[in-house]
Amino acid sequence: MRRGEEAVRVALVMGDPCGISPELTAKLLTLPGVTEQAAILVIGDLRVFRGGEAVAKASVPVDVVHQAADARPAAGKVTFLDLQTLDPATIKRGEASAEGGAFAMKNFKLALALGKQGAVDAICFTPFNKLALRLAGNPYEDEMQLAADELDFDGPHGEFNVLEKIWNARVTSHVPLAKVSSLLNVESIVRALRLTHDSLKAAGLSTPRIAVAALNPHAGDGGNFGREEIEVIGPAVEKAKELQIRADGPFPSDTVFLRARAGVYDAVLTMYHDQGQIAIKLMGFDRGVTVLGGLPVPICTPAHGTAYDIAGAGTANVEATRRAFMLACEMGRSKQRA
Amino acid sequence: MRRGEEAVRVALVMGDPCGISPELTAKLLTLPGVTEQAAILVIGDLRVFRGGEAVAKASVPVDVVHQAADARPAAGKVTFLDLQTLDPATIKRGEASAEGGAFAMKNFKLALALGKQGAVDAICFTPFNKLALRLAGNPYEDEMQLAADELDFDGPHGEFNVLEKIWNARVTSHVPLAKVSSLLNVESIVRALRLTHDSLKAAGLSTPRIAVAALNPHAGDGGNFGREEIEVIGPAVEKAKELQIRADGPFPSDTVFLRARAGVYDAVLTMYHDQGQIAIKLMGFDRGVTVLGGLPVPICTPAHGTAYDIAGAGTANVEATRRAFMLACEMGRSKQRA
Repeated sequence: MRRGEEAVRVALVMGDPCGISPELTAKLLTLPGVTEQAAILVIGDLRVFRGGEAVAKASVPVDVVHQAADARPAAGKVTFLDLQTLDPATIKRGEASAEGGAFAMKNFKLALALGKQGAVDAICFTPFNKLALRLAGNPYEDEMQLAADELDFDGPHGEFNVLEKIWNARVTSHVPLAKVSSLLNVESIVRALRLTHDSLKAAGLSTPRIAVAALNPHAGDGGNFGREEIEVIGPAVEKAKELQIRADGPFPSDTVFLRARAGVYDAVLTMYHDQGQIAIKLMGFDRGVTVLGGLPVPICTPAHGTAYDIAGAGTANVEATRRAFMLACEMGRSKQRA
Repeated sequence: MRRGEEAVRVALVMGDPCGISPELTAKLLTLPGVTEQAAILVIGDLRVFRGGEAVAKASVPVDVVHQAADARPAAGKVTFLDLQTLDPATIKRGEASAEGGAFAMKNFKLALALGKQGAVDAICFTPFNKLALRLAGNPYEDEMQLAADELDFDGPHGEFNVLEKIWNARVTSHVPLAKVSSLLNVESIVRALRLTHDSLKAAGLSTPRIAVAALNPHAGDGGNFGREEIEVIGPAVEKAKELQIRADGPFPSDTVFLRARAGVYDAVLTMYHDQGQIAIKLMGFDRGVTVLGGLPVPICTPAHGTAYDIAGAGTANVEATRRAFMLACEMGRSKQRA
């Protein structure tokens, strides 16, 4: 934090209690350089957190409050909002449960409410378990929809996968591959480019460089294997340039990530789900961060899951959580300045 | 070579003379363990080869013949079929030319003719340049079509990308992405699985393990994002199993290459071009080998190109060529035994 700057307020949401989330929460808060970054408000149950400390063999000094109304994260300390919702003795490590799902969802919803009120600037959460969330009656397909609804937000928003310095966004996501082409148009692509541009700026890049993937093999080979590059994607890139967005392409999708990996681009906009996911997962996305971007409050989480198989072992790698937290801080600061 | 076994006869075709092909040909033949593998017949122009030796700072003893009819590759020596077609003084290094394209094409066609006659068991070629081939009047889109035509072969055949221990084949290739779904049916997928199975067996694997990629995100998520997995790909995998082909899947395409990389599978059958190419190129396909499989004569070539930018520098990496040659030997031996 620079002198005179107000500390960024970050809600650190405890995720699924049956996996590695408690351990990650405790480990994160003992890493050098973490608590100095922000006024941190941990949201969860102190007993679950203490269990995480035991697994992590760590001890974190926290100021405990019990009411959301008392939750005032402040610089130089970790505030713990102890909701007293879950006795860890009632759950079983390594198994998805309704109790675990309800715990994570309650923590997350409270963080969103605080974000909506302007009481926190950014949110970071440790992994949720989808099955546990479903068992707890969560009707949402993913955290993005839940967050947008809780924030009453219907503007452009989307999920980004961030692997070290490479961001990946996509124009279409959970749709049949045969329908992708029909969902691509200049507007949908420019909207995704705008969201990508804005989200990377929110993460501190002054002029994000975005590579746009083609749809067809060899980028359509001049129209021989499809015309979307000529009729839709190319014009969308031109339109984005007019809007002062630094976009290039379309590039063949089998080399576009090589360009990004070489550092030539900060982000890759892909046309469909697997186009980016194949690349990102091969490059080691388990070390990456998922960003829910475009929302009134930036939200970051490690890309990996709850790792039930190593829950309690103390061996969980905290690096992706650290990156998610640092990115949440950066985006929260950018929001403060805006 | 085992005692009593007849030496496998491999045609080593000199590719484009303006890039690194001459250097690679010379370097390959000086590597330990190479000339012992096969009765090698180099097809090209001795002057171009000597130029390659000069760049490679290598010297290879060869027996020179001038007529295809005299070309009888024999164990324990390298035979050079000197067609006297190209004086290297007439071409410019680092540039595609009609002369260079004609040279490479003539060498390749002769090798195919020898393969058709049964005079060689396998073919390995150093990189061609597509532009040079076009300048030379080659009407084919790729080497596969040219080879099938020259061999008068119309049975199932296809291109494989081989990266170390992972083979990748695809059901569809140079078609618009929007058309891929309509080209998938149980027959087309089983045919590709059969070709993959047979080609890996030809490369020496007794029971190739094949992972089949899904088409849709999350393998269709039980039908939520597309039904091809349920209606076409799954049934094709079952049908292949009945035919004693060891196939599994469909697997989500963003994790299927992780399985192969972990050694669980020998091959991945992908549904469309970029699904495999994104993964293979990220994993370092420039080190890989392209196999033209299913033809009466196995054909292997390094996956990289002619590298005009480093032509003559002596810095070309011969590893992919070595792998292509070794695979051609293995597939040629398998053909001898069949």
